[in-house]
Amino acid sequence: TVFCSLLNVTLRDWVAVESDSSDVLRRPDCHRMMDMTAEKLQAMGGKVELVDIGVQELPDGKTVALPKVVTAQFGNDPSKQTVCVYGHVDVQPAKLEDGWTTEPYNLTDINGNLYGRGASDNKAPVLAWIHTVEVYQALSIDLPVNVKFIIEGMEETGSNGLDAMIVAQRDTFFSDVDYIIISDCGWLSRRPALTYGTRGNCYFFAEVEGPKQDLHSGVYGGTVIEPMTDLIGILDTLISPSGKILIPGIREAVASLSDEEWKMYQDIEFDIESFKSKIGVSQLMYSNKVDLLAHRWRYPTVTIHGIEGGFSGPGSKTVIPAKVIAKFSIRQVPNMDPAVVKKQVTDYLNSVFAKRKSPNKLKVTMIIGAKPWLADTKHPLYEAGKAAVKRVFNVEPDLIREGGTIPIAKTFEDVTGKSIIMMPIGGFDDGLHSQNEKMSRLQIKLV
Amino acid sequence: TVFCSLLNVTLRDWVAVESDSSDVLRRPDCHRMMDMTAEKLQAMGGKVELVDIGVQELPDGKTVALPKVVTAQFGNDPSKQTVCVYGHVDVQPAKLEDGWTTEPYNLTDINGNLYGRGASDNKAPVLAWIHTVEVYQALSIDLPVNVKFIIEGMEETGSNGLDAMIVAQRDTFFSDVDYIIISDCGWLSRRPALTYGTRGNCYFFAEVEGPKQDLHSGVYGGTVIEPMTDLIGILDTLISPSGKILIPGIREAVASLSDEEWKMYQDIEFDIESFKSKIGVSQLMYSNKVDLLAHRWRYPTVTIHGIEGGFSGPGSKTVIPAKVIAKFSIRQVPNMDPAVVKKQVTDYLNSVFAKRKSPNKLKVTMIIGAKPWLADTKHPLYEAGKAAVKRVFNVEPDLIREGGTIPIAKTFEDVTGKSIIMMPIGGFDDGLHSQNEKMSRLQIKLV
Repeated sequence: TVFCSLLNVTLRDWVAVESDSSDVLRRPDCHRMMDMTAEKLQAMGGKVELVDIGVQELPDGKTVALPKVVTAQFGNDPSKQTVCVYGHVDVQPAKLEDGWTTEPYNLTDINGNLYGRGASDNKAPVLAWIHTVEVYQALSIDLPVNVKFIIEGMEETGSNGLDAMIVAQRDTFFSDVDYIIISDCGWLSRRPALTYGTRGNCYFFAEVEGPKQDLHSGVYGGTVIEPMTDLIGILDTLISPSGKILIPGIREAVASLSDEEWKMYQDIEFDIESFKSKIGVSQLMYSNKVDLLAHRWRYPTVTIHGIEGGFSGPGSKTVIPAKVIAKFSIRQVPNMDPAVVKKQVTDYLNSVFAKRKSPNKLKVTMIIGAKPWLADTKHPLYEAGKAAVKRVFNVEPDLIREGGTIPIAKTFEDVTGKSIIMMPIGGFDDGLHSQNEKMSRLQIKLV
Repeated sequence: TVFCSLLNVTLRDWVAVESDSSDVLRRPDCHRMMDMTAEKLQAMGGKVELVDIGVQELPDGKTVALPKVVTAQFGNDPSKQTVCVYGHVDVQPAKLEDGWTTEPYNLTDINGNLYGRGASDNKAPVLAWIHTVEVYQALSIDLPVNVKFIIEGMEETGSNGLDAMIVAQRDTFFSDVDYIIISDCGWLSRRPALTYGTRGNCYFFAEVEGPKQDLHSGVYGGTVIEPMTDLIGILDTLISPSGKILIPGIREAVASLSDEEWKMYQDIEFDIESFKSKIGVSQLMYSNKVDLLAHRWRYPTVTIHGIEGGFSGPGSKTVIPAKVIAKFSIRQVPNMDPAVVKKQVTDYLNSVFAKRKSPNKLKVTMIIGAKPWLADTKHPLYEAGKAAVKRVFNVEPDLIREGGTIPIAKTFEDVTGKSIIMMPIGGFDDGLHSQNEKMSRLQIKLV
């Protein structure tokens, strides 16, 4: 009961903060979110710090302060092991007019599901771990381990500044940490899961610039080479209708699928029909489970997210946009390397663009280059994870990978040398980065 | 002096109204704009009517009232000829963040240029004609002709509802009209001009719909056939890098360029270098004057305006958009027919889309189908126009065509059988439909 009331009240307060880290105009909300997180942990008697991680450089050359990173420590007993929980409290953009049926920043309880931006990604999971400590405190039970927290506010845009902070605190904050726990992911089905791999993400801007300002399409149409036509032309060369990536070198770098992996995928609980009906499509890119899971987890993919600078509102406008910027990203996997991907994509688009003989200017920028991550599922940490899931849910967890990116996992591993486990708390149908994001009360044992 | 003070004050009031007819949320401003127009004409003693032209059906099936059409009459002398001036007081969308250097709805005078959305298209030209009547009144000089006005508020989105109104009033309001004057266009250079043709406009929505909601590109990338990839794929088949329209049948329908036309284009005052530097490009689609003017005026063109439904904001978002809608338009010319173009485009895109074997749904809609218009430059009306220009500016006007669309010209001609003349008042560099639209004080003789 303690647990329930605490979580419900604080999650509502947290979701109410529009901590969208991709929008600099929302940066004050991000700062406030970090303050609220620190205050919460401080009120529980933690040793809390708000760590300044510097500034973010904007495309126009200006700088803006990054949200501080919150670190906290509960217990300092050298005879106990120390676990460090990582999480983030920034969120993806969300607007009611995107198609939400509830106000995205007003936590709404419908049939045991708590709807709100950030409910699952990643505010409720962070609070679940915080409240675990709080429940021990409320029941006056000693924590069996020392618990540390590291909570950031830039995850959704690539954890800007966190890498350097981890490097800087390797021999201080991280010196006594034995294990790192991340719950910034979800189950694959209604069966609990442990996650042992994530894809990386290379996020690109491709900007085509032509006339010095937008032009009337009637008055100028036919006389200028339009930037939008050029941009559409080069975007169309990224990927084939059947999902094949056309950028030279990308597919060659991918680790091949082993027989053992194939077997493991075969055994995972995953219902193609319910997956299809959940997302509402009649046909998927692949029709069998292994291909589908493999292309979700361990093969790269290209997504074109949208185009900035054109007319994107409802209704009609007869404009020739002067400058258009495509946003697309490549989820990459072992053994791809973001630095190589950046060069492959840039060289390819430049060569495709050159063939058009356009007087417009193309500029390709990689704004995020987050690496993939892969853990050893035989490690004692995963054995402990399996036992914990078994105890709580009375079932063996599926061992799964994540199609999305948790960039920091790779950094933790490379810098601290500690072992990392991903224990998903979010559900398989939580609508991350989408409309109507939610966290189920059942999933967080909040009934 | 009377003229100056009147125009300046009223133009400021008019520009202050955000009468953007493409945005239904701005519809109240459009209604207010029509009321203000009617009040102005009424205060001058005109016989004014606000004509209800019904409702507009929105894509979601709802309806919203169309802005009423203002008609007015000054003088009713059967011994005089009657001219009817057509104009519109709705505007294109404009936001400061589009790149305006002044507030778009705050008329700003910089070095004799009056900046503001709608200043040139079409509020100042409409006011110029209204104030012409007013100056006659102020100076107590009898008008040499009876003057009628027909002012609408939906021009920028295809003059919705006006056609039916013209048909309905053919034997009443239009029965005594001898000539129709339109000033909804601009000069080609610093030399005054009369316009004898306009291109039509077929405006299309191509909507590709896939999953039932937006998806996280990490979690789902690789498993779904993404609507954006499909849409980019079909858009890329509309036009070649060198501007050739690839839709079968379109080019074949275009009237061929006559020797006489070629000769006429050769003689028109048009400086390619200043055109290039004005729009800020290093290279145009064609490098000689005749090709350039011909492709601007009398050949069709395709412009892709933008994509709705994707991520079009600044920054990054890792979304697979569930439904994306491309907006593109084809400026058409004699002897193309909008109904035929609609079928050609729809059939072509459907066939291109079918080849992709995508499970997503494509829906092609033509939301505007405005016809091109062409006048006889030997008609007495054009002779009178030439004489008037000569008298005011002391120079022969160039006879030009307009790349843009003034849909109503064709309707006036077809329904009323009257002769039409286009007398441009706007300048060649007024930034119509673009940032920093302006009207020069010199151009409207407001010094």
